[in-house]
Amino acid sequence: MSEKTKVNAAILIIGNEILSGRTQDTNTSTLSLWLNSIGVNVKEVRIIPDIEKNIVETVNFLRKEYDYVFTTGGIGPTHDDITAQSIAKAFNLEYEIHREGYKILESYYKPGEFNEGRQKMIWMPKNAKLILNPTSGAPGFSIENVFCLPGVPSILKSMLGGMKSDIVGGNPILSHNISLKTVESEIANSLTKVQEKNKDVEIGSYPFFQAGKLGVSIVIRSEDQDKINNCISQILEFVKEKKIEIVNR
Amino acid sequence: MSEKTKVNAAILIIGNEILSGRTQDTNTSTLSLWLNSIGVNVKEVRIIPDIEKNIVETVNFLRKEYDYVFTTGGIGPTHDDITAQSIAKAFNLEYEIHREGYKILESYYKPGEFNEGRQKMIWMPKNAKLILNPTSGAPGFSIENVFCLPGVPSILKSMLGGMKSDIVGGNPILSHNISLKTVESEIANSLTKVQEKNKDVEIGSYPFFQAGKLGVSIVIRSEDQDKINNCISQILEFVKEKKIEIVNR
Repeated sequence: MSEKTKVNAAILIIGNEILSGRTQDTNTSTLSLWLNSIGVNVKEVRIIPDIEKNIVETVNFLRKEYDYVFTTGGIGPTHDDITAQSIAKAFNLEYEIHREGYKILESYYKPGEFNEGRQKMIWMPKNAKLILNPTSGAPGFSIENVFCLPGVPSILKSMLGGMKSDIVGGNPILSHNISLKTVESEIANSLTKVQEKNKDVEIGSYPFFQAGKLGVSIVIRSEDQDKINNCISQILEFVKEKKIEIVNR
Repeated sequence: MSEKTKVNAAILIIGNEILSGRTQDTNTSTLSLWLNSIGVNVKEVRIIPDIEKNIVETVNFLRKEYDYVFTTGGIGPTHDDITAQSIAKAFNLEYEIHREGYKILESYYKPGEFNEGRQKMIWMPKNAKLILNPTSGAPGFSIENVFCLPGVPSILKSMLGGMKSDIVGGNPILSHNISLKTVESEIANSLTKVQEKNKDVEIGSYPFFQAGKLGVSIVIRSEDQDKINNCISQILEFVKEKKIEIVNR
């Protein structure tokens, strides 16, 4: 398994409503799980306000740092939707009506309903590639390695499939979860030893409190199932020794 | 109301489990709502992996850029909890046992239970100030303007009150929500005009789909209730003109 197969990405959540705490972001988790499944590892997430300067600077940093960038939010019809114009600025491209997008929305809406507000949604950076939206018509778009999606979670989810052919992933990241009826400090030393013996596997330890149960979930992640299996047996060894109960979650 | 009263912050979520999508972050929303209520405006959130270099570099950037930085995650007893040592490195401070913290945990645990794993939780940067933890004993800490909190949401929540005396906020950010039975494109132009007339008020527009209802929430945010009231009446004017129904959410 060579280094070359590792593909990474950043997620950029654009929206004052997330920063104010009013809205709970769920798109990070949706995107990360999906990207993992196609072999793209999310390395960083940033949440920034609807301010052009911030969007331009952050996109220009992230698109050079990572293989892919996924933005969410700010592509609707209102005054606070400034993602498309900001991306145009970041790439130094014209911001203009997208012909194909125009046709899609023109036929999506009833005659007379394709008003100025709605037309704003197909103003995009020149030569943007559309990401089709089976839920509500208005497409997202990509420019080079930057993919711009809407903020509404259900719409975003419906658009993931449409990007798949444009994203070249590496080997999918596999993971295995072992949940134990214990506390972290009981297993910390043993787990450290397993991590030291398996340096290229990511081993995480997460306490949980759920339905009156108190426990620890150990998550083992790697592109290589054999390496995961090795860790599992080393972990189960100390679990057995310590007489810790394994629980289903 | 002078510029001086504006106090800002960044949140830094540390944890592979959020980046992998396995765990849904809720601490951003908890912290943002609380910070808003004490007059601190969250300007940026970053989510990064449990990698020392990333933590050191990001903390050193954010603590110079913003008035306050709040980190979550990575202060437990296991090998993947590396926040405290990384913060020590960021500030170029010794990483050592915190005497007061040691005493707290020594009396928190039953005799013989304060083992090596648990002792790791009171290794901190030299001269760290403790943030008390009424839920599970192990304290967080602050160094200058950086406050380090645990990742477990219920524990984090219980520790907010303990930081209040160390944070000097500005005027609380007030907000008002108007929910309408309409779609964004119907009100986009009118809302743009209101925003243009009230440049120092933050007006956001958010479509919602909830319990079969389709609508738009307009959120008006400012430190000044009079300015919010002005916007409300201007919005209600076009809402009445357009015969749009106001809904309760």
